[in-house]
Amino acid sequence: MSTPANNTPILVQKYGGTSVATADHIRRVAKRVAVEKRKGKAVVVVVSAMGKTTDELISLSRELSGQPARREMDMLLHAGEIISASLLAIALEEEGERAVSLTGSQAGMITDDTHMQARIEEVEGERILGHLTSGRVVVITGFQGVSRENEITTLGRGGSDTSAVAFAVGIGARQCEILTDVDGVYTADPRIVENPRKMSWCSYDEMLEMASLGARVLHSRSVEIARKFGVELIVSSSTEEMPGTLVCSSEKGRKEFGEMEEVLIRGVAHNADVAKVSLLGVPDQPGIAGSVFETLGTHSVNILLIVQAESHEGHNDISFLVSSEMLGQVREDLEALADKIGASKLLVDEGVGTVSVVGEGVQRESGIAGRMFSSLAREEINIDLISTSNLMISCVVAEDSLEQAVQAIHREFLE
Amino acid sequence: MSTPANNTPILVQKYGGTSVATADHIRRVAKRVAVEKRKGKAVVVVVSAMGKTTDELISLSRELSGQPARREMDMLLHAGEIISASLLAIALEEEGERAVSLTGSQAGMITDDTHMQARIEEVEGERILGHLTSGRVVVITGFQGVSRENEITTLGRGGSDTSAVAFAVGIGARQCEILTDVDGVYTADPRIVENPRKMSWCSYDEMLEMASLGARVLHSRSVEIARKFGVELIVSSSTEEMPGTLVCSSEKGRKEFGEMEEVLIRGVAHNADVAKVSLLGVPDQPGIAGSVFETLGTHSVNILLIVQAESHEGHNDISFLVSSEMLGQVREDLEALADKIGASKLLVDEGVGTVSVVGEGVQRESGIAGRMFSSLAREEINIDLISTSNLMISCVVAEDSLEQAVQAIHREFLE
Repeated sequence: MSTPANNTPILVQKYGGTSVATADHIRRVAKRVAVEKRKGKAVVVVVSAMGKTTDELISLSRELSGQPARREMDMLLHAGEIISASLLAIALEEEGERAVSLTGSQAGMITDDTHMQARIEEVEGERILGHLTSGRVVVITGFQGVSRENEITTLGRGGSDTSAVAFAVGIGARQCEILTDVDGVYTADPRIVENPRKMSWCSYDEMLEMASLGARVLHSRSVEIARKFGVELIVSSSTEEMPGTLVCSSEKGRKEFGEMEEVLIRGVAHNADVAKVSLLGVPDQPGIAGSVFETLGTHSVNILLIVQAESHEGHNDISFLVSSEMLGQVREDLEALADKIGASKLLVDEGVGTVSVVGEGVQRESGIAGRMFSSLAREEINIDLISTSNLMISCVVAEDSLEQAVQAIHREFLE
Repeated sequence: MSTPANNTPILVQKYGGTSVATADHIRRVAKRVAVEKRKGKAVVVVVSAMGKTTDELISLSRELSGQPARREMDMLLHAGEIISASLLAIALEEEGERAVSLTGSQAGMITDDTHMQARIEEVEGERILGHLTSGRVVVITGFQGVSRENEITTLGRGGSDTSAVAFAVGIGARQCEILTDVDGVYTADPRIVENPRKMSWCSYDEMLEMASLGARVLHSRSVEIARKFGVELIVSSSTEEMPGTLVCSSEKGRKEFGEMEEVLIRGVAHNADVAKVSLLGVPDQPGIAGSVFETLGTHSVNILLIVQAESHEGHNDISFLVSSEMLGQVREDLEALADKIGASKLLVDEGVGTVSVVGEGVQRESGIAGRMFSSLAREEINIDLISTSNLMISCVVAEDSLEQAVQAIHREFLE
């Protein structure tokens, strides 16, 4: 494997769709990339499709078919990143930097053949490294790859972040910058909390919990790959030069930022797009819970939280959350299932949301749960369900009190 | 090499950009293709980019650079056909036909690495044939290919026609249908002549002459490949079901259409986008003409016609035509050249055009030239230059009498 000249640091940057939405945006990105290049770095840039391109292509396909073939959707959508990547390469050359755009396939992103949700099998980094060695900025189409049968694939939601991290791994880069329209990861959603703080860092595990609990900055897959291969992520603004949020191992974060006092919780996450499903009076027999979640699994429904309370008189209540958009898909099956397993009642409540605290301090400090619940009680917010892990405490509350709940908890721990 | 079931005829169709301009257009194309498929044919469809997509991508690139890298332009533009091809595959599946879209690269279009003007080296037809054998309609992106170094290339002007014919050759199809917004090749431009006739057929050689003399229906490259490999072309309407024009060998055409009487001329072509360059009083020495056209050759300027009259008193006048758009590029060189070779004068006249008759009868019938010149004389149109080959007679006339000239000649021979 050829490698860039010794000691040349490799920088991998990913720019999202809003950052390359127009020719002007692309020119700005090119200027910024050129600055990094002139600092002597070997630069790889991974881009999403311009602005609403992907949505427009999807709506064209919908004009033709209610259920277009997944293989053809991959073929169609992968054109979007080809356009933004080649335009960025053109803009970089105009800035005086030699540049080359590569499709996912050309860049060595090898995936399985699950169209629209392909899993990465391998990144063959040789071609990227060859171009870096020859002094070029390498611009790669995010979101897409190619199967070993030479079929175009896409990675599904959050695909460009995932691409960027995978390419960083594939070429031995230590860091991957995710440049976006927010300038970092905040302690709570700035649309809800008045003065959220930008985290200087958070651990991979904390970021994963936050993502699964509703934070939308980074997709879990990209964080999982980063954690697995020890690639550090930096989330920062694509337009302004300011420090973002570093996502790294706990050890590295503590060492780098020297937290003298233990941080109890890293942030407050919330999710309004959930529905609560409760199966009441389920016979307390082995295998029942399994059959419930196997049924949902066949629909690839992501279960967000499961609570089963203490059984009483040989019967259990099982509650869980699914994303609201999945509910329509599984409703019929749930009704059939409730009959089959002899549940006395099926309840579906779409008027709920989750509020969660996330942080590596959660497990060590027994008082956190109490403080969280009390801060909700002071606002007279009723807690419907509770679930905890070593990194988070999550409460289901009524959707119309969700914002108030986020504010109360943020005030309690982070202001 | 796998092949479609014995006796399954292979149909190759090419649809241009206006035929796939919107989702509605694409749906119509899909319906038409499905009809052919249901007749038991193995169908390959080659498509251009939708409507103005290519122009829009070019103008995006121009916002970023006055002279974008050719490699990146190929990368950028090849996205256009990916979009139309995948959408057509989606529309075909909606019509109940199994379909698969392939990029030029996937379909085995191997070219050299001359970006934006790549030459086809080979078509590896196995993958197409494999899909045909399994009963799928194969939709291929026109205009684009891939070099042996896995670089995306495009074929330049008329590229989708050229692609279609090359794929027909590569999979052993006998015919290739070029479906477009005109329903065939006419005996003259319908915008100029009131009642032109649609040709039922014309020979490869006649079509090539007409293309080089200004007819814009088919690009020469596609006809050259068709002639070389004996693939018949059918030019017809993409929207209406009616016989088009067959482009084939003279033998086949005569046999098929049984022309009892010799057709003297096949059509009248004209070209207004030319400029006449005259070098007057050039010393009549060996090598002079060579140096003139070598100079132009280094600019890849296409010389449309060269006339050198009888020398007098040791001096020659050399006149030739170049396309108007090339003139600016070579003007300075021409002036330097006129000095260098000792020409007494350089004249450039942009106010000219060519009118030509084309047909395999031209060489056999000595009277044609006379009838052509007389019909111009009757309209008091002065003939500036004359050039002939075994397939055509071409006259340079003032641009403002060009339409009148086309009408007069069409009347003389074809009405």
